[in-house]
Amino acid sequence: MRKVTYGGACSLDGFIAGKDGAVDWLHFSRDAQQIMKDSWENFDTVLMGRKTFEVSARTGGGGGSFGDIKTYVFSRTLDPKSYPGLTVVSEDAGAFVRRLKESEGKEICVMGGGELARSLFDAGVIDEVGFNIHPILLGSGVPAFLAMTRRTQLELLECRRIDGGCVYVTYRVNA
Amino acid sequence: MRKVTYGGACSLDGFIAGKDGAVDWLHFSRDAQQIMKDSWENFDTVLMGRKTFEVSARTGGGGGSFGDIKTYVFSRTLDPKSYPGLTVVSEDAGAFVRRLKESEGKEICVMGGGELARSLFDAGVIDEVGFNIHPILLGSGVPAFLAMTRRTQLELLECRRIDGGCVYVTYRVNA
Repeated sequence: MRKVTYGGACSLDGFIAGKDGAVDWLHFSRDAQQIMKDSWENFDTVLMGRKTFEVSARTGGGGGSFGDIKTYVFSRTLDPKSYPGLTVVSEDAGAFVRRLKESEGKEICVMGGGELARSLFDAGVIDEVGFNIHPILLGSGVPAFLAMTRRTQLELLECRRIDGGCVYVTYRVNA
Repeated sequence: MRKVTYGGACSLDGFIAGKDGAVDWLHFSRDAQQIMKDSWENFDTVLMGRKTFEVSARTGGGGGSFGDIKTYVFSRTLDPKSYPGLTVVSEDAGAFVRRLKESEGKEICVMGGGELARSLFDAGVIDEVGFNIHPILLGSGVPAFLAMTRRTQLELLECRRIDGGCVYVTYRVNA
């Protein structure tokens, strides 16, 4: 079964981007780059919601393309014909990811914001959570976690201080 | 100048209490008890908002009394005559705390939820932040941080894994 990880960088108050999508607060330190490099070696698939895709496309993420990485964008409104090379998924995200986990491949990365993550937590298909908590209160922006109807128990795997006063934490999702 | 610290226990998704004020998810581990004991030796004053006070009074916090600790409750609606021993502050919280910091005494603790903390962050009177991040996504509840109009830069002081898969972090507030 392929592992699904939700994560990224966030502020102490839980935003993955500031107001208007601002990411100028991110520390691209050597530690952070090493963690990203190590993580990306395990992934061959990226899942994102429409909003994240649109930000990624706008900021030069190449329309959702990440080299050899297969990208799925979950949206009921995006026109797939406008984005060749991209796979737009309009069916229920939980059911789709459940099948995807059983297919052949490497690990799967869920990129924020929290809307796609919420539906995947609700569906119980996320296996790990990893965040690089930055030493800032952004005050507003794109939340990493949205309101959910049930609790999710986590198990701390790793916790360490990295460059720039960031705290890197990873968790296994237990229920 | 007396130090003002905002903190407590929270979930990874940033709630200091779950739905209906639930705190059954808290680990009262030896590590957590030691941290609380060490912290409380430095405090002689507690600040809280009305909602936190009402929860505290209801759950046996003794109507806001903590032994020799002086407690201030910020509220424009509470009737001080109903709570002898308690000091109800109805003036602007930021201005009050700015004066309080200049008075004689030990350190000052701001107890959540986030409404009082927000007004004190806005007023620039909080010096440190400390949280015991628990390994759970509560999904809903009382947020540690509410939306704020400006960013607050933090400086990581301490980060360590403690009992129960909790992560204890403390920060200096820089701006």
